[in-house]
Amino acid sequence: MHVPLVLLDFLDRAVELYGDKPAIVGEERTLTYQQLNERVQQLSYGLTKLGIQKGDKVAYLAPNTEDMLEGFYGVFQVGAVMTSLNTRLKPEDYLFILNHSESQVLFVDQELYPLVEPVIDKLETVKYIIIHGAKEDQQAGLSYERWLSQFPTDEFKRVPLEENDLANILYTSGTTGNPKGVMLTHRSNYLHALSTQHHLRVSDQDTLLHVLPMFHVNGWGSPFYYTANGATQVMLRKIDPKTIFEKIEKNGVTVAHMAPTVLNMLLEYAKTENVPKRDNMRVVIAGSAPPPAFVTRVEEELGWEFIQVYGMTESSPLVTTSQIRSEQLSFDEAAKARLKAKTGYPMIGSKLKVVNEYGEKVAADGKSIGEIVVRSNGVMEGYWKNPDATSETIRDGWLHTGDMATVDEHGYMEIVDRKKDVIISGGENISSIEVEGVLYEHPAVLEAAVIAVPHEKWGEVPHAVVVLREGHQLTEEEVVQFARSKMAHFKAPKSVVFAEALPKTASGKIQKVQIRKEYWGEGARMVN
Amino acid sequence: MHVPLVLLDFLDRAVELYGDKPAIVGEERTLTYQQLNERVQQLSYGLTKLGIQKGDKVAYLAPNTEDMLEGFYGVFQVGAVMTSLNTRLKPEDYLFILNHSESQVLFVDQELYPLVEPVIDKLETVKYIIIHGAKEDQQAGLSYERWLSQFPTDEFKRVPLEENDLANILYTSGTTGNPKGVMLTHRSNYLHALSTQHHLRVSDQDTLLHVLPMFHVNGWGSPFYYTANGATQVMLRKIDPKTIFEKIEKNGVTVAHMAPTVLNMLLEYAKTENVPKRDNMRVVIAGSAPPPAFVTRVEEELGWEFIQVYGMTESSPLVTTSQIRSEQLSFDEAAKARLKAKTGYPMIGSKLKVVNEYGEKVAADGKSIGEIVVRSNGVMEGYWKNPDATSETIRDGWLHTGDMATVDEHGYMEIVDRKKDVIISGGENISSIEVEGVLYEHPAVLEAAVIAVPHEKWGEVPHAVVVLREGHQLTEEEVVQFARSKMAHFKAPKSVVFAEALPKTASGKIQKVQIRKEYWGEGARMVN
Ligand SMILES: Nc1ncnc2c1ncn2[C@@H]1O[C@H](COP(=O)(O)O)[C@@H](O)[C@H]1O
Repeated sequence: MHVPLVLLDFLDRAVELYGDKPAIVGEERTLTYQQLNERVQQLSYGLTKLGIQKGDKVAYLAPNTEDMLEGFYGVFQVGAVMTSLNTRLKPEDYLFILNHSESQVLFVDQELYPLVEPVIDKLETVKYIIIHGAKEDQQAGLSYERWLSQFPTDEFKRVPLEENDLANILYTSGTTGNPKGVMLTHRSNYLHALSTQHHLRVSDQDTLLHVLPMFHVNGWGSPFYYTANGATQVMLRKIDPKTIFEKIEKNGVTVAHMAPTVLNMLLEYAKTENVPKRDNMRVVIAGSAPPPAFVTRVEEELGWEFIQVYGMTESSPLVTTSQIRSEQLSFDEAAKARLKAKTGYPMIGSKLKVVNEYGEKVAADGKSIGEIVVRSNGVMEGYWKNPDATSETIRDGWLHTGDMATVDEHGYMEIVDRKKDVIISGGENISSIEVEGVLYEHPAVLEAAVIAVPHEKWGEVPHAVVVLREGHQLTEEEVVQFARSKMAHFKAPKSVVFAEALPKTASGKIQKVQIRKEYWGEGARMVN
Repeated sequence: MHVPLVLLDFLDRAVELYGDKPAIVGEERTLTYQQLNERVQQLSYGLTKLGIQKGDKVAYLAPNTEDMLEGFYGVFQVGAVMTSLNTRLKPEDYLFILNHSESQVLFVDQELYPLVEPVIDKLETVKYIIIHGAKEDQQAGLSYERWLSQFPTDEFKRVPLEENDLANILYTSGTTGNPKGVMLTHRSNYLHALSTQHHLRVSDQDTLLHVLPMFHVNGWGSPFYYTANGATQVMLRKIDPKTIFEKIEKNGVTVAHMAPTVLNMLLEYAKTENVPKRDNMRVVIAGSAPPPAFVTRVEEELGWEFIQVYGMTESSPLVTTSQIRSEQLSFDEAAKARLKAKTGYPMIGSKLKVVNEYGEKVAADGKSIGEIVVRSNGVMEGYWKNPDATSETIRDGWLHTGDMATVDEHGYMEIVDRKKDVIISGGENISSIEVEGVLYEHPAVLEAAVIAVPHEKWGEVPHAVVVLREGHQLTEEEVVQFARSKMAHFKAPKSVVFAEALPKTASGKIQKVQIRKEYWGEGARMVN
């Protein structure tokens, strides 16, 4: 029997089995799944009233709030497409995305409204702006709560959906050109959820703290599979270590997803503030390669389970995990930590290969470098209104990730760099991630980013930007010597500068492209 | 990106990630997933040589052996349809099924060959018979090992499959008429696997003992999801408590699937033989309602985790579990045991309702009885060449299970009877399962089956067939009095007979239909 794989199933199950459970813990209120569901019905009635129909795009610009979470389901019920916006963009980016996606309604959090205000007049398709958190209707837009409260809470008659209907368009920013809209279907998200929940061992005994922004590939799909499992979901507006530890403690949080940079903040905070260890907590890490030292620090200093996963917006996103497999369980702790710091192996439902330029698998020797290609139902349908970019990225049924990796003898992949971040020095490939990993071993180093800079003799050489721990001092020469003592000399940075902070994306990734621009000049090809 | 959900993915993953792991533990040899895979390639080459093409049916009559397990994947690679036969049928049943399914090849275990021998001459479509375990080719058929060994072990070029292609036809025997062939697609089995592995918490650290026969809905799909997860799978030819406990101990088994009757044998054996308790072992129970007393006995006497699931061949099969949900975790142990003995609530991916004759949900009061209907991708496409039976069973997009159940305030369903086993006495519904549950509480009762027998005044009344524990004595009067002391008098059996054993199906279900026939006569409608 064919039953379409539609994400609304997940909310239905939560309502049926966990209807009275305190499920969504917002800043100011707690909702049961039943209450969440009532708000979802109201939202769908409201959207219909605004004329939203199947296939229309509805944009969200919000931090992790219950208003955002219910948005997914309210939008899906009318058959519309959720377009959630990164909260760290510039007004011009919002202008481009809102017009390009043809969004008809914009839901925006009061605090973030100033980000779109400057471009409001230039929006071509947005007909309504509704403001989360606004107490009263304003000239800028309607108060969400007032607007919502007009509509009935009884069961909305859903617009029929097929599994291949679009669920979201998620814009990702490349290094050049305009943001691209990743199109994900209900089927993609649904199958991603089934696979991910299994590998992350999600259950109704979980309490998730929504650290990772939901606009970022739907918080790696978390509003779907934590809902399906009837877990409790705690909201978080801002990344702040103190608040995070408080919420974990207060709500009995068992799991959180975040990027390594956020984890680093937590580790630093826990050390200075002597945060006690906690059992029964796992942290799911992705977004960039975590330095191996993190694994042991998480386990020893926080007492948490460290789980690394990997994926990209174009694949829903998660496709690998590096949890230790049965055959490696007997390895010593150090060896296991090294494996956990790797990118890992395919989750059930995803196929991955690391291939050379001819599309052949590279040797599983832990050295040969190739590009990760992915084939799975999680992979996007393509970029919205951008067939050229689509056919550059999906070729012969495989998504080309641009992530360069090795594969070890046990089949664990390890990303050594983004294709464009690899440093090619005198014909040798240098992994910027490997160099960073060495710098992180230095006790005075808080953060490090290594990029290629032009060099007359070698073409490119590694250059490091380092943020020091408070109260620590270090010279360029010391950093270079430290690196040379730990790795092949040609890999060690030739030059080092110190910075107060590194530029980061909203999901916490270090933006090397920003750093590179300073050395290569805006718009340059940035290879030598 | 659409990637067809095809079961071969699961083997591929096991080979890629667990290729060298001792994975399949047969009676005489252990195979790694790589070795299993080589045999699968050989089998596919062999089937192709025999002329088997996409859509052809290949029949298997075998106990749980590695030869059977590899059959699934070898058959799927050529695009053919696996038709596995119940090992407890009569020659005429095999004749019907083999002809009706149009099977072209029959793989049969040497020990079971005598079951089909009498009808060999009447087989209309079977062109080849290949005998598992035969050392030499025989007049009856070819030796499997000799035949297989001729073929190459290198990668077979698979016949392209779509997810809606049939994977198996599984024959179920109703109470009347010919067996019906349940058609399951790759998609059905695949989505069933994704859902079930999650709820059963299957991982590569599991070692499964294949107690439940694989011919029975593919061992509830176990050859698929235990393979996908890279678990170790231990084979078992015959249900024998001593062998089962030995294999569990020897192979470090962590999980087994079985019917309550088999579990009962294990409980009895463990008690008399003082089998020590074992941690880290879960038993997954379905097939009929387990008496509540079993739950505590499993936990206290064996130390195992008790997990109940429910399903039927027509739904791939599993659709519910009764593992305690977060909201009931704080209940006392007795209350939790009562919940675990219930049929449970939907797994992710399945929708269930308990409906009255008008298709309306019955009240969630733990009393109102209705029929369980199921909607899920696991539900069959229909019965092979039997559109009438199909349209009787699948109506308006819901599978009508024939299982009568109540729903309690927490949403746990509880099967009180098969539709045809409900006893209607003086206009009141009596659940035969409820009466049996009471009889099982008596320390002298080993097994009990309650059926309706005709009665002049009441139409039908409950009648019990009881098997006593060794060394115990009981009179009819004592049984009746015991039941009357525990439940409403009209529900207590009016008559009792004692038997040496109860008739059972190969999967271990008590065949009430057999017992009923003795009282109502063969072919009667069996209601009054
Ligand atoms: N957990 C369970 N509790 C009660 N009956 C069950 C359970 N699991 C399976 N059954 C019965 O077994 C039937 C399916 O039989 P089969 O198709 O042979 O697997 C169902 O329709 C139920 O009547």
